Amino acid sequence: MKFVIQRDQLMDSVQNVMKAISSRTTIPILTGLKIEARHDGIKLTGSDSDISIESFIPKEEDGIVYVEQIEPGSIVLQAKYFPDIVRKLPQKTVEIEADDQLKVTIRSGGSEFHLNGQDADEYPQLPELHTEDSFELPTDLLKNLIKQTVFAVSTVETRPILTGVNMKLEDNHLNFIATDSHRLASRRIPLEKQTQHLNFSSVVIPGKSLNELNKILEDKQDSVEISVTENQILFRTKHINFLSRLLDGNYPETSRLIPEQSKTIVYGTTKELLQSIDRASLLAKESRNNVVRLQTKEKDQIEISSNSPEVGNVVEELSAKSIEGEDLKISFSAKYMMDALKAIDNEQVKIEFTGAMRPFIIRPIDNDQILQLILPVRTY
Amino acid sequence: MKFVIQRDQLMDSVQNVMKAISSRTTIPILTGLKIEARHDGIKLTGSDSDISIESFIPKEEDGIVYVEQIEPGSIVLQAKYFPDIVRKLPQKTVEIEADDQLKVTIRSGGSEFHLNGQDADEYPQLPELHTEDSFELPTDLLKNLIKQTVFAVSTVETRPILTGVNMKLEDNHLNFIATDSHRLASRRIPLEKQTQHLNFSSVVIPGKSLNELNKILEDKQDSVEISVTENQILFRTKHINFLSRLLDGNYPETSRLIPEQSKTIVYGTTKELLQSIDRASLLAKESRNNVVRLQTKEKDQIEISSNSPEVGNVVEELSAKSIEGEDLKISFSAKYMMDALKAIDNEQVKIEFTGAMRPFIIRPIDNDQILQLILPVRTY
Repeated sequence: MKFVIQRDQLMDSVQNVMKAISSRTTIPILTGLKIEARHDGIKLTGSDSDISIESFIPKEEDGIVYVEQIEPGSIVLQAKYFPDIVRKLPQKTVEIEADDQLKVTIRSGGSEFHLNGQDADEYPQLPELHTEDSFELPTDLLKNLIKQTVFAVSTVETRPILTGVNMKLEDNHLNFIATDSHRLASRRIPLEKQTQHLNFSSVVIPGKSLNELNKILEDKQDSVEISVTENQILFRTKHINFLSRLLDGNYPETSRLIPEQSKTIVYGTTKELLQSIDRASLLAKESRNNVVRLQTKEKDQIEISSNSPEVGNVVEELSAKSIEGEDLKISFSAKYMMDALKAIDNEQVKIEFTGAMRPFIIRPIDNDQILQLILPVRTY
Repeated sequence: MKFVIQRDQLMDSVQNVMKAISSRTTIPILTGLKIEARHDGIKLTGSDSDISIESFIPKEEDGIVYVEQIEPGSIVLQAKYFPDIVRKLPQKTVEIEADDQLKVTIRSGGSEFHLNGQDADEYPQLPELHTEDSFELPTDLLKNLIKQTVFAVSTVETRPILTGVNMKLEDNHLNFIATDSHRLASRRIPLEKQTQHLNFSSVVIPGKSLNELNKILEDKQDSVEISVTENQILFRTKHINFLSRLLDGNYPETSRLIPEQSKTIVYGTTKELLQSIDRASLLAKESRNNVVRLQTKEKDQIEISSNSPEVGNVVEELSAKSIEGEDLKISFSAKYMMDALKAIDNEQVKIEFTGAMRPFIIRPIDNDQILQLILPVRTY
């Protein structure tokens, strides 16, 4: 195996596949990064067996040559050292060569690295996904779907299914839903006609996979092709394949959690609410719950407050756009509320309460595609 | 106590005094931040008893009003919460008020914090420094003196005196010297006539104090006045007093460590050398010593190399400007060499060797104010 490659392109690809590589894996060869030189370009692979990422650097694209002098072959290199080496090489091009004894030489300018490689034949074969269940999403939309839901997955393993995001097809809409049983985040988007052939109805994608995917996807990329099988999901962009296992088990039915009626509705400015709650929670930082109180006042005023007996207390007064319905006193986690407000893609927010003991709903004022739900805390 | 203050000015001052405040102090009130309202402005104080920092915000300066409605008084506030509160307040001005029960109210816009304060009378009195031993240095020069030496102080407490930087007056020059007994960093500058009255000849300033001072000093400030007493040193800028204790004991005489003759002299480009050594050390990262080898070659070439049997090896070839004297093979800590090269304030560097077992010297090519010395490692 041998090739000469542009360092910057190699660096980008290495950083992408590194997101799948963990130093704490039970399969030793997976601590390595697989390099495959083909006549049409270079393919890098990283995997921790839950997530596998392939990144391809074409020999030539749009008239720009990225790889030259290709002699096909493949090798696995220790992922611990390779990214730093590539980043710090002195020249814009890098020559990488592997011999029959699995010795790898990396040359750039006056710099020459000799590394011990591993046999690429010992690297696990990634499953080829054969599926008709494919559809496309614009990259920025997929990133939003992830950002507006994934923070609400459970971080404890007591109910493993809740550590994933439920991706669900229903009435020609695609739903992303996450809940840790104290709060719920969801986003739905209409799907094009072309997707009516899809066979899957509901899968659960590990939250960790979506977080890593979100880091790799660049807004400038046009679209992502998503393919689903029984136990795996593939996200494919022009040069990247991102493969994740799916979580086993049935995701709980969440629609019954969402109250259909409300007793108090608060309309407000998203940023003002967010900043007031942030300040109100400052003194409660260390207490596990980080609870703040919200109280409606006369003349569309809201009071948000918290009390930490040893330190002091905070009272925030702010004006709502309007308040409809009954007076309200309610307590909730400041962190959950801030997470939810950050996911609201709008300057104005609508919060619907059904009494101090019932879950409440946060939505953008002008659409119902985003829904955030929080269970209150009993303090009154 | 009461005053209304510009939030940005208050924030800057709070961040400065916070550098002296530690949550792990044996004197509980020192976890607090002292606020003193005087007719001419507001003084903040933080201290961990090794370092004390006072920052002053004048009532008015250059026609700009920073503080209004001052009612003199003082209070001590929990430093843990105060910086975040100030940073996140909604308006540009902040009102701070303390009552007789040590209750403090912080108001800004619709935001109101009530904090429990502590009696300022219980806060330790900072020593007033009475000394004639004062001199001034330009701020950027003092920052350079610190940056070019402080990294070489010892981080282990076996010889506490080596955890400090030796500041020494000699032949109308000011010397900063640091050594951990494996390497030495020094910088000397000529002093003006006006400083010939100074009585101190040698003091040792804790490395930690200088690191914190360096963070606080801004290049835009004109100059720093330095005052020395037997066991304390005061750095004074327009609005900041930075007081540090000095280390007890005699600093070792270091001049005899510096070889007076050399057998091999290498002239090279600082950045090229730095980057080559950085790469050569990549594979040796985890070994405690992180040793690289340097070898002179024909035609003014240098080879820098390292070998980590399990991972591989690196060979870096680079051209020196010129090499004078004997051929040389020498091994040394890559980290020490990189620290030293970063302290060289010049594109070109001169390295003087006296054989593979003797300390060697790194200097800028055109001046002898900066001297870095490193003890080699025996491997050949």
